[in-house]
Amino acid sequence: MPQGMFDDIAVSPTQMRREEDLVQRVLRSFDGTPNPRTKAIMQAVTRHLHALVREVRLTEAEWETAVKFLTDAGHITDARRQEFILLSDVLGLSMQTIAINNQELENATEATVFGPFFVDNSPCIDLGGDISGGASGKAAYIEGSVVDTEGNPVPGARIEAWEADDTGLYDVQHADGGTYGRAHMFADEHGQFRFWGLYPTPYPIPDDGPVGRLLRAVDRSPYRAAHLHFMVTAPGWRTLVTHIFVANDPLLAADSVFGVKASLVKEWTHHEASETTPDGRDLHGRPWARTRFDIVLAPDASMR
Amino acid sequence: MPQGMFDDIAVSPTQMRREEDLVQRVLRSFDGTPNPRTKAIMQAVTRHLHALVREVRLTEAEWETAVKFLTDAGHITDARRQEFILLSDVLGLSMQTIAINNQELENATEATVFGPFFVDNSPCIDLGGDISGGASGKAAYIEGSVVDTEGNPVPGARIEAWEADDTGLYDVQHADGGTYGRAHMFADEHGQFRFWGLYPTPYPIPDDGPVGRLLRAVDRSPYRAAHLHFMVTAPGWRTLVTHIFVANDPLLAADSVFGVKASLVKEWTHHEASETTPDGRDLHGRPWARTRFDIVLAPDASMR
Repeated sequence: MPQGMFDDIAVSPTQMRREEDLVQRVLRSFDGTPNPRTKAIMQAVTRHLHALVREVRLTEAEWETAVKFLTDAGHITDARRQEFILLSDVLGLSMQTIAINNQELENATEATVFGPFFVDNSPCIDLGGDISGGASGKAAYIEGSVVDTEGNPVPGARIEAWEADDTGLYDVQHADGGTYGRAHMFADEHGQFRFWGLYPTPYPIPDDGPVGRLLRAVDRSPYRAAHLHFMVTAPGWRTLVTHIFVANDPLLAADSVFGVKASLVKEWTHHEASETTPDGRDLHGRPWARTRFDIVLAPDASMR
Repeated sequence: MPQGMFDDIAVSPTQMRREEDLVQRVLRSFDGTPNPRTKAIMQAVTRHLHALVREVRLTEAEWETAVKFLTDAGHITDARRQEFILLSDVLGLSMQTIAINNQELENATEATVFGPFFVDNSPCIDLGGDISGGASGKAAYIEGSVVDTEGNPVPGARIEAWEADDTGLYDVQHADGGTYGRAHMFADEHGQFRFWGLYPTPYPIPDDGPVGRLLRAVDRSPYRAAHLHFMVTAPGWRTLVTHIFVANDPLLAADSVFGVKASLVKEWTHHEASETTPDGRDLHGRPWARTRFDIVLAPDASMR
């Protein structure tokens, strides 16, 4: 019997048996499923969803609200907006799926949510190049290394980086159709990398749909802690999808999608326009920030 | 720990703690919800959905399949098609919600699914009239009584009846925009009622969308046992939404929405065209069927 079930509502033994009989009938309806994994998942879906509606003693009006919520989420979803991913995100289900599929391996860098703003075919930059592509925000220099769990460099690892501008929007959220705030590069023969980008800005997830209404109903903020996305791939290594965050960002403890992990929070230093940049780049009188992200890739489980 | 969890996949204590920590963080994010019922529901949704994904060790590809399934269900849903209700139906969640909200009360008639084919403002017929409105199928005479749980008649109870024709379609599924196979009437001063309709025909739920694909993947039939819908209302009594079924219908044990209850399965007698009808109606040479449905209404809980 799930925790909390029937705590405060009197349900007769006859009624409990009737409800349990229905659960068993639904479970048996999946007995003939040819694929054993599909069968196990559908029977688990049945057990957990029936336990949910029985525990809360769901009313018919609440059931209608749930149907309407899912319908609205479906209707706002299109090629540029994915409300079901947002829903999974704000319920922590995206992070839980990532946790399940990226179990901690020794000192490998931790993963976090992929998010809906990655796009294929980002520009390729040389090491030390600029991913911002003219997007607005404070300049930032990011450098680091890519090594394996034994400390050996991973030369040539492909590093994708993408981020919002200082208005809190990604390029794909702007109407101009441009590509900026994203690029990929390859680590050098020592596994080292460096690039210029933007100091991260916090922003809200899209909150003009049913997920936004849900967050308001539960008095939760739609804001994400400021972050810079990374995806790091190299043949023979587990693909790493992660972010880096900003130390002391007040949103770290209240990230709307539960994406923050302590190991991913980085110190950033801030520098006046007059200070010389690490690689001598001329920022034309702009101040700049700087941080370091040392990446550890886990072995690809499928190749062990 | 939910039943079956971690049975066959090794998950380290560190990993379990990491996953459980995430569940606790998501639960706490709802702590500030102003409405206590909303808070309880969202925390229960969180607990049960996280237990589900952890128990099955959901892969990232399966998570994507779930997002696509919900998206497709949203996109096929419109004013005439409700895929999320179908999904709730085939998972037995509609029947479970009905069971929870219509706990058996003494000898009151049992409820079953409402279905998506009810429409407001059906034609009103006199007792003994015909609900079929010209829809095709075998004529059937249905009579019965409406009483309370102590056996007292409920005069004037409003009885709505609706059903598919013998092609398995409701009027709203035909393209002609007509209204047929549905009507309402009022019980007489003794709580008695009688009408002509159609002998029920089994039919599949709409299976050309994601729910149909799901049923095929799990080798389940989309067919519903043959039935005739009723909704009975009277001031002071709990609204009864139910069906009657046909004894010996082979689909009774395999109804795709789990709507069958033994008490709702009725014997129907079959009669030659030459036999005189109970009320002397001239069927112009058609054979006919006959059954009886005695209805017992429960008191309206809100008025106790």
